[in-house]
Amino acid sequence: MKFKATATAEDITGEVKNSEHFRYAEETKLAWDEGRLSADITEEQRKLQEADLIIFQFPMYWFTVPAILKGWFDRVLTLGFAYTKEKRYSNGIFKKTKALLFFTTGSQETMFSPTGINGDMNVTLWPSQNGILYYCGFQVLAPQMFWAPADAAQEGRSAMLAAWNTRLQGLLDEEPHFYAPLDCFDCELFSLNL
Amino acid sequence: MKFKATATAEDITGEVKNSEHFRYAEETKLAWDEGRLSADITEEQRKLQEADLIIFQFPMYWFTVPAILKGWFDRVLTLGFAYTKEKRYSNGIFKKTKALLFFTTGSQETMFSPTGINGDMNVTLWPSQNGILYYCGFQVLAPQMFWAPADAAQEGRSAMLAAWNTRLQGLLDEEPHFYAPLDCFDCELFSLNL
Repeated sequence: MKFKATATAEDITGEVKNSEHFRYAEETKLAWDEGRLSADITEEQRKLQEADLIIFQFPMYWFTVPAILKGWFDRVLTLGFAYTKEKRYSNGIFKKTKALLFFTTGSQETMFSPTGINGDMNVTLWPSQNGILYYCGFQVLAPQMFWAPADAAQEGRSAMLAAWNTRLQGLLDEEPHFYAPLDCFDCELFSLNL
Repeated sequence: MKFKATATAEDITGEVKNSEHFRYAEETKLAWDEGRLSADITEEQRKLQEADLIIFQFPMYWFTVPAILKGWFDRVLTLGFAYTKEKRYSNGIFKKTKALLFFTTGSQETMFSPTGINGDMNVTLWPSQNGILYYCGFQVLAPQMFWAPADAAQEGRSAMLAAWNTRLQGLLDEEPHFYAPLDCFDCELFSLNL
């Protein structure tokens, strides 16, 4: 898929509200309200609404998704469609949908252990899993990682595929990650910064 | 700048080594060795080599850089040019160059406090600051953040600019972030997983 990665005013069909001072989130929200988002975005949004489970599959580039997938997040997860100020995190729009990140790495697993040189993989994934997926309400399943398959022998690569195949059988019954629900952040404990 | 965001085989001028099984990092390393990277990448690499300090300025989109800047990282920080297996982190190629992230947010600062709903901003920035900048050796200066300027009054926005102006005077004398140097990860403490 040759998805357009960069968020621009061309994502909107027809007039923009303020071309002098173009604000992407506000302008695309308005276009979404009025059915004037570009066809490629609209098509992806349709798929999102139909899915029970979304698997984002990618090679990890620079500790996160490649630009083309970042562009998918930037362009498809429109304000209004994917979140509002009221509807996010545990109150998020996609709270009935499961999502997981499935990626290959260049690094070996040891480099992403809690004492590994790259730091704990959970920290690396935090902005994507909590900050993108859970923000929109998605139930985040544990990531599926294929560690450095390019450096693995055929046997190792086959084992990775077999493990995924096994996991797939029970994937929809897995418990999603736990993240503190929205109302925790209004409670006394948090407001006191304890 | 209409920078191409997506890493593709078109980033290489002339023949690729293995078009059947195209591996971006290896192919672009070879092209870099032979001076066959596309003109836009070569031009950005020239700027990187000349700079003493690089300021990456962007609006935060989905807890990290927008796709166009992610594409800049994906395409410009070529294997060989920006890092090798031997030259990374404290032994990184750009260890004489300073870098900092300068961005605007949609969220208020409290949402990114350690007990804020978005989690600590330091965690959100870890994959970019440690994983991209420090990986290439850059001395990472503290990020410059303009919190929710779109929601601020003119006075608040002026104060943000004034604070940056003040900081700029001493920027080159600032101490960079400390990250554990490479050789720590070979020492007994770490190999014992303590």
